[in-house]
Amino acid sequence: MNKKGLLVVVSAPAGCGKDTILKYAFGVCSNLHYSVSATTRQPRPDEEEGIHYFFKTREEFKQLIEADELLEYTEYAGNYYGTPRDFIPKLLDEGKDIVLKIEIEGAANIRRLFPDCVLVFILPPSFAELENRLQKRGTETEETIRRRVDIAKVEMFSIKNYDYVIINEKLENAVEDFAAIIQAEKLSIKRGIPVIE
Amino acid sequence: MNKKGLLVVVSAPAGCGKDTILKYAFGVCSNLHYSVSATTRQPRPDEEEGIHYFFKTREEFKQLIEADELLEYTEYAGNYYGTPRDFIPKLLDEGKDIVLKIEIEGAANIRRLFPDCVLVFILPPSFAELENRLQKRGTETEETIRRRVDIAKVEMFSIKNYDYVIINEKLENAVEDFAAIIQAEKLSIKRGIPVIE
Repeated sequence: MNKKGLLVVVSAPAGCGKDTILKYAFGVCSNLHYSVSATTRQPRPDEEEGIHYFFKTREEFKQLIEADELLEYTEYAGNYYGTPRDFIPKLLDEGKDIVLKIEIEGAANIRRLFPDCVLVFILPPSFAELENRLQKRGTETEETIRRRVDIAKVEMFSIKNYDYVIINEKLENAVEDFAAIIQAEKLSIKRGIPVIE
Repeated sequence: MNKKGLLVVVSAPAGCGKDTILKYAFGVCSNLHYSVSATTRQPRPDEEEGIHYFFKTREEFKQLIEADELLEYTEYAGNYYGTPRDFIPKLLDEGKDIVLKIEIEGAANIRRLFPDCVLVFILPPSFAELENRLQKRGTETEETIRRRVDIAKVEMFSIKNYDYVIINEKLENAVEDFAAIIQAEKLSIKRGIPVIE
């Protein structure tokens, strides 16, 4: 059996509950580890440096790009997001499963670099509900919220490039869906035929 | 979202615990239904007509073949096994998930008829353990057991044509694996892109 870890890439429009789903998924999937991204986005109140993101100034981020220290990076809603280069292959070889939170363009880049990765897209039950959730979060202006909902509508067209879609109607079910995807992928024949004695 | 049911084909060498796994899987997967096969094999003490199999004489089975009432059939370990024609498409259209217990050649036939089906192979932890389980079952002669283990070894070569492999080391985990496969397959983008408002 192939003992290499699984690389799971998760994309979702902002406000779809991606972070909450993953938080609970770590309680269910014992072998799961985060790949921490670098970003120029402002930290939200509950976000910690090195845990949720490596928070960088635009100047610092550009230095990472120039030094070729990022596996991929992209600009999204006015901010840079990128994946540190050395982190992923090392953890996969150790047999650890890794989750990468990443937007659509970045996900496509990761797929090219790691063809075996699993791409998961998370959707809200509706766009009205998405707007509602973003407003409740209260961390963004009305204009940013409208912009994010518009971006989400465009992102729908990219779903076809993903492997799985989870609709986050009920958190508990979405977490279960996520765990099932990881469990099933590990049983998939395309990841290696098991040998028994 | 595609509301059509999922067709899951399960193959396993005799003694791998296929029936027990499925029995418990029906408790977890609420939408799951059996497709009942016809066979010329002798019923085991706990097996009921119309629930586990439609038990037929060789003569009756040949009549089903001639009347084209079987979707597929095959001879395996000296007995005929076949799938009644009308059962599956009807249930799938109703949105029900169906499990078909079927040997390797039959599974390949079903794949040709239903390309969207999911093929699951169940393995014992080892061949020694398989022999052990068959002996414990006490329903077959030593010669039949040796024959079944030999067949199992040959069947290993066909695993590559399946989508998933479950190793039945611990029943509880195998049932969970089976349920995860069904749950994940329903989230797979290849079964239709969900549309949200």
